[in-house]
Amino acid sequence: MRDRKNKHVGSRNRPWEKRELRRERDRNGPALIYGWHAVQAALENPKRKIRRILVTPNGARRLEELGIKPKVTPEIVRPNEIDRRLSPDAVHQGVLAEADPLPSPELEDISPDGLVLVLDQITDPHNFGAITRSAAAFAVSAIVTTARHSPEATGVLAKSASGGLEYVPVVLVQNLARSLTELKSRGFLLVGLDEDGAIDLSAAPLRAPLALVMGAEGKGLRQLTRETCDLLARLEMPGKIKSLNVSNAAALALYVASRAVGRS
Amino acid sequence: MRDRKNKHVGSRNRPWEKRELRRERDRNGPALIYGWHAVQAALENPKRKIRRILVTPNGARRLEELGIKPKVTPEIVRPNEIDRRLSPDAVHQGVLAEADPLPSPELEDISPDGLVLVLDQITDPHNFGAITRSAAAFAVSAIVTTARHSPEATGVLAKSASGGLEYVPVVLVQNLARSLTELKSRGFLLVGLDEDGAIDLSAAPLRAPLALVMGAEGKGLRQLTRETCDLLARLEMPGKIKSLNVSNAAALALYVASRAVGRS
Repeated sequence: MRDRKNKHVGSRNRPWEKRELRRERDRNGPALIYGWHAVQAALENPKRKIRRILVTPNGARRLEELGIKPKVTPEIVRPNEIDRRLSPDAVHQGVLAEADPLPSPELEDISPDGLVLVLDQITDPHNFGAITRSAAAFAVSAIVTTARHSPEATGVLAKSASGGLEYVPVVLVQNLARSLTELKSRGFLLVGLDEDGAIDLSAAPLRAPLALVMGAEGKGLRQLTRETCDLLARLEMPGKIKSLNVSNAAALALYVASRAVGRS
Repeated sequence: MRDRKNKHVGSRNRPWEKRELRRERDRNGPALIYGWHAVQAALENPKRKIRRILVTPNGARRLEELGIKPKVTPEIVRPNEIDRRLSPDAVHQGVLAEADPLPSPELEDISPDGLVLVLDQITDPHNFGAITRSAAAFAVSAIVTTARHSPEATGVLAKSASGGLEYVPVVLVQNLARSLTELKSRGFLLVGLDEDGAIDLSAAPLRAPLALVMGAEGKGLRQLTRETCDLLARLEMPGKIKSLNVSNAAALALYVASRAVGRS
């Protein structure tokens, strides 16, 4: 969503790769889910296979207060037992679940009547997580993103999603442009968000089924992604700054789009 | 914006206090501004007194490309010279400015005709920064927050604000409820954002001058803050999750409010 001039400058540094410990990102390891909102939603999701639950003594009391009866017996541990399994800045609130990653549905499984969010190389797990949370808030039927250049659905992403991962399926695809074409052939209107878009999103002729396509900050949509969209729309802003943090832009776009297609 | 049950659980851990190094947070030290958007906006702000500029050789070239001629001669340094002055996850993009903090105007200096954003103990600098960026995008005339329980306008906050600090004055007050009363006596309508608010913000009778009041995630508005508001409004969301990340909620609220008071 930001100007593309920064492309070559910003892409070298990936702070989250430094910040995240390898154990949070191991592709073959379990999904690590911590914090109450995220864990509670995971425990309530019948599709989520939970392997272990670690709680502090306080966490165990809270589990009971909340009336949650997990199928797996929670292990009561000291806070530093949880600390050492996570990155130093993880706010786990005394609860950690190890779970199998959720299955990634196929593109053709997406119901062709609602709102889909397509993320083009949004790699920051905080942003991806916050976007997933907003997607759940706006009843998005699926998030579509590339298997490469997207963060793992674990750790800080799951925490930022605040349970959103349990409600919005994430469809991982190999080739985004091809998947967009497939969505188009199934009747989806493809609207790319772009600072230089020809039309203000709130004035655009939106209708369901709709796929909103967003690129990363600093990079925007890739050329082929842009070309595949039916229209490019901007978020009109009256102030001196013309771009928002990508998760803020996503929240705004979802708000406008979900109203336009009658979902709220 | 999240349920308040989490209050006692989440408040103990403050990840940013671990993540931020003391040098980024020294109240008597200079404001550290890094990343191109933030530094460029600071250099262009006549009210911002710049003390030093450190750039990498690449950064120096970019400064020239952008046609920026700072009053202070940039010092060309190796990247790790900048690295070691910042927290390990700071994406500085090869440029760092040391500057005086901007003056904090008085409450009575706020123009009584626009949109003001009041932040009640939002302490996470990433969120505060992203909110400042959105405030600049929506032409907010000032952010009002407490001197205590608000993050320093430096480092990661300035980076997340992406230049927004240069456009939106931050008014630091001692007592938020008293300041709200003062705004009310100057004609401001005080609208608190609250998950359990009586009315959907987009249906609320908004008018300028308007002060939008937001609390921290997990805690919400403090009791006295709530009581001082003219009305409490919620952001209506159709999905399974009923709350957003606080900066996402702020972006949405600013969008709705700025349209309602005719600012966009």
